[in-house]
Amino acid sequence: MHRLSKIFQPALIIPKNATVKNQDITSKSQKLMLEQGLIRQAGNGTFHVLPLLQRSVEKAINLIDVHMQSIGAQKLTLPLLTSAELWKKSGRLGDGHSSNSPPTELLQTTDRHGKMHILGPTHEESITALLATIAPVSYRQFPIRLYQISTKFRDEMKPRFGLMRAKEFLMKDLYTFDVDRTKCRQTYEEVNEAYDRLFSKIGVPFVKVSGDCGTMGGSISHEYHFPSEVGEDELVQCVRCGIRSNSELFGNLSQQCKTCHGKSEDFERQAGIEVAHAFILEDRYTKALGATCLHPNGKPAPLQMGCYGIGVTRLIAAGIEVLSGEKEIRWPLPLAPYRVCIITPKAGSKEELAAGPWVDRMYNNLQAVKGCEGDIIVDDRDQLTIGKRLLDARKLGYPLIVIVGSKAATIGEEAFEVHNLVDGTERTLSFVDTLASISAVLSDPEKDPGYLKMKVETQI
Amino acid sequence: MHRLSKIFQPALIIPKNATVKNQDITSKSQKLMLEQGLIRQAGNGTFHVLPLLQRSVEKAINLIDVHMQSIGAQKLTLPLLTSAELWKKSGRLGDGHSSNSPPTELLQTTDRHGKMHILGPTHEESITALLATIAPVSYRQFPIRLYQISTKFRDEMKPRFGLMRAKEFLMKDLYTFDVDRTKCRQTYEEVNEAYDRLFSKIGVPFVKVSGDCGTMGGSISHEYHFPSEVGEDELVQCVRCGIRSNSELFGNLSQQCKTCHGKSEDFERQAGIEVAHAFILEDRYTKALGATCLHPNGKPAPLQMGCYGIGVTRLIAAGIEVLSGEKEIRWPLPLAPYRVCIITPKAGSKEELAAGPWVDRMYNNLQAVKGCEGDIIVDDRDQLTIGKRLLDARKLGYPLIVIVGSKAATIGEEAFEVHNLVDGTERTLSFVDTLASISAVLSDPEKDPGYLKMKVETQI
Repeated sequence: MHRLSKIFQPALIIPKNATVKNQDITSKSQKLMLEQGLIRQAGNGTFHVLPLLQRSVEKAINLIDVHMQSIGAQKLTLPLLTSAELWKKSGRLGDGHSSNSPPTELLQTTDRHGKMHILGPTHEESITALLATIAPVSYRQFPIRLYQISTKFRDEMKPRFGLMRAKEFLMKDLYTFDVDRTKCRQTYEEVNEAYDRLFSKIGVPFVKVSGDCGTMGGSISHEYHFPSEVGEDELVQCVRCGIRSNSELFGNLSQQCKTCHGKSEDFERQAGIEVAHAFILEDRYTKALGATCLHPNGKPAPLQMGCYGIGVTRLIAAGIEVLSGEKEIRWPLPLAPYRVCIITPKAGSKEELAAGPWVDRMYNNLQAVKGCEGDIIVDDRDQLTIGKRLLDARKLGYPLIVIVGSKAATIGEEAFEVHNLVDGTERTLSFVDTLASISAVLSDPEKDPGYLKMKVETQI
Repeated sequence: MHRLSKIFQPALIIPKNATVKNQDITSKSQKLMLEQGLIRQAGNGTFHVLPLLQRSVEKAINLIDVHMQSIGAQKLTLPLLTSAELWKKSGRLGDGHSSNSPPTELLQTTDRHGKMHILGPTHEESITALLATIAPVSYRQFPIRLYQISTKFRDEMKPRFGLMRAKEFLMKDLYTFDVDRTKCRQTYEEVNEAYDRLFSKIGVPFVKVSGDCGTMGGSISHEYHFPSEVGEDELVQCVRCGIRSNSELFGNLSQQCKTCHGKSEDFERQAGIEVAHAFILEDRYTKALGATCLHPNGKPAPLQMGCYGIGVTRLIAAGIEVLSGEKEIRWPLPLAPYRVCIITPKAGSKEELAAGPWVDRMYNNLQAVKGCEGDIIVDDRDQLTIGKRLLDARKLGYPLIVIVGSKAATIGEEAFEVHNLVDGTERTLSFVDTLASISAVLSDPEKDPGYLKMKVETQI
């Protein structure tokens, strides 16, 4: 049994007379996550991920694994230390033939033998070098789709918004290799479809826009955003032609739609938090690093490459940012640390004796409900009143809260208060109806009306 | 269906006329893992973990999670970037009041604001600082047991033996906090018992010895080793009193048992690969960093701390080192990337038509066998002969290999060759008996006689 009293979840301690400084670099989700003991700050832009949030992170990883493997992507792990030599070859370190990005956001370390390593935000160089060691690869082996979920680094000038713009973060990065542009484009569409399915499953409203290829150096790019006031990107939809873009694409001066030449009065704007991106990189890296394909005609040619990121820790923080109120966390249902919280009777209360045995019974029966196994936490801090614990459970945002020990239980008719934070209802139900109602919520989260789904135009 | 033809598993390419250099820094497991496409070298002491090995790593993580959570340990993630300030406070950076370890093995990085961070091999400072932020913690909250599984760094002068002594590696590190020495000792015993269960489950013979507290600065330490010629530690058992120790404990000159004063002629020696360790650290870190407990008398005192590591990637490499032959990998059964490999008929063979339909049937029925679900790979490279693929499957060491397409299948009596690498048998079985025999091997790996278990004296 997962017991809340055992969970290491130190809440925010605000020193007396403290004034909140740096309001501009914090966000609702960061405050809520600190207050509820999900994260603690370790340094400027670095955080301890505490046990409850760790569960959420692992759920996100599992969900991403399923969706990546559904398109035949294979998981591996590239070393975090990437040779600076590779970054020079690709030109991203500034010493190469062309550098679009200043290397100021790259953390680096030099080992005892004087070799410099990059602690990278992405791993294009590393994965391309891996392919290059076995080049040329027969055209029969493609597509090759490889991904990892690992810690990435970006030496932000001003880390902010907690896990949303941290110096160290967890990211999924998928790299795809194809024999030609047509196949690469097919892969691009398959991955984008997998992203659409993944984000629909997560259940936070999202929009997909054309993005800037920027420092990645590719030709086509799309971004996935959760619309939110704290988002640092401005998303623009041209109502004349319907196309959605990151406003970066418009440049600072030009205020014209690149597709239909619509004017700025035709634009609808909203702020978004970027949670995923997709790039077609063409042969930008494969050419520089020698990752080639052996074509049927017997000739080698550089592979056509794509890269596809998802910010795992950012995704969770952004989901909380969008769904939560000022005082209470709301989780994307598939990412809640626990789906059900059972609150036990207060110690010494007159309900304790009659209601007590129902706790185990409720727990054990719920364990058998689909989507519940291993996902139930029991708030057994029975020195606290039920009311206080209900308040805490609502703040933490467990999607379903079951109170064992309401008055009804003492008069022989077992009855349970079920607080459904997904649809905002609160009902008193029999034992059997409690199980049935929880099963209904969890068995098909996609049909659940609680989290608004935004219809997404998938324009590639 | 997991198809072998789709697995990205580039085998070692040995350039023509290459001579093997640095024989002294390689090992059987490293060679086998390179040859079979489980790893590829990225740099000096850094490796790409390729898809097959990634599965093994994830199995090891799951197994460790289960055993850690069985003793109430909670998983979290500490940032990889640890402030150098904390290392100065604990005295491990050389600037503090007492330094036992030269910092030459510590990788470090300095961010754009001039702050130095350590890429640490362990995280005592980080976790203790986390506890200190909420100190003093009421005695009622203990024991607190927190662990993570994450990338660690050690700037080895001479990285060697592949994943066994790499510059970057995956490690489980558990930190425990108790109110006093007695409770700390109880925790130590509980964790050691969990380690004993874990290593028994993995099934590689292991020995447990007293270890040197060295740079960790604690009072009691034990190490878990897989005995192996390539092991860099010398393990000593005094036959007079039975005590086992790392020979480091004896010092360079003294050749006397510290327990019974037995002489060196009473010692039995063997080499071992250290795969796990346990330390009681007392208040070495908690005092320096201010992690205190509020005792029932209302007074705060430093916490009693323990730390417990397992080298995850090293464990897998060491297991392969011990169990494998020169040409063929043998896996610890719970860590094999796939447990069953099905080899399909050769394309165009006379068996293909009759045997073909049995592949799906075998796959689907095996999926329902306990311990098999998601753990079956189909070698569908049907342009190759069965013999060639059997050789490959043996080299990769899939514990159970089922050949669909032997002669018997063509004459209407379905019969399957089952190669059991666990007990070294090879039998021709009916469909039903094939399922039953595989079920028998996998349903109780602990009872399996194939992997010798060494009886361990648990002397703490």
